[in-house]
Amino acid sequence: MTDEDIEAFIRATPARTVAASTTRKDGRPHVVPVWVEFDGDRIVFNTSAESVKGRSLRRDPRIALAFHDDVPPFNFVLVEGTTELIDDRDIVATWAGRIGGRYMGPERAEEYAERNGSAGQLLVSVTRSKVIAAKDVAD
Amino acid sequence: MTDEDIEAFIRATPARTVAASTTRKDGRPHVVPVWVEFDGDRIVFNTSAESVKGRSLRRDPRIALAFHDDVPPFNFVLVEGTTELIDDRDIVATWAGRIGGRYMGPERAEEYAERNGSAGQLLVSVTRSKVIAAKDVAD
Repeated sequence: MTDEDIEAFIRATPARTVAASTTRKDGRPHVVPVWVEFDGDRIVFNTSAESVKGRSLRRDPRIALAFHDDVPPFNFVLVEGTTELIDDRDIVATWAGRIGGRYMGPERAEEYAERNGSAGQLLVSVTRSKVIAAKDVAD
Repeated sequence: MTDEDIEAFIRATPARTVAASTTRKDGRPHVVPVWVEFDGDRIVFNTSAESVKGRSLRRDPRIALAFHDDVPPFNFVLVEGTTELIDDRDIVATWAGRIGGRYMGPERAEEYAERNGSAGQLLVSVTRSKVIAAKDVAD
């Protein structure tokens, strides 16, 4: 994929859930789907500060993301990066609304701003360090 | 979700790609989508022995899998487990055919048995240690 193909794939609508992988304290891998949005080149998502990924990222900022679809030929883009954790309530709520709106429709943005912008919620901002793209995996 | 709901979700057809997460030698998380099939309760997939996950799993058998879909209400099932790596050519090829057939149609099973059952390919067999299910995440 070209750089343009990669951006088109990861930003495609309807938005796909993205697998976010972190390393637990004891070295076990952890992965969970998240909703993402884009802040320039950065990839952002919300999490609770006390979730597994919230706690893991406080200890180790390294993350891996997989954007993948479920239809042949099963293209995917893998992003490795480092994370910044933002707990400013206004910033968290603003992005929670944008992210919720991207997945559930703009008419529900305000609902998600409240729900995922409340106390104890974080915005995780991922700076990409490595991107790997695979196209037409099945062929 | 009940246990039956979980099995129905992870075994649903058309088959979804599954995010497989491992820990690299330096502690960085790694995640990549894989095609899976079921051997009783075990979840199996193919990989090259020299892939990132092939090398990581030789060192540390712990794995995390995310089964997730891309449509509201965005259900998902997370599986943590330990892996056994099988390099027997006949076993690897047999499962490569079943797995390829599950994703690409039974008429292409033989093609995938050859392609993913060749020298240097492994079958990864995951024994589940923990399963977490989330239903109606968006609501």
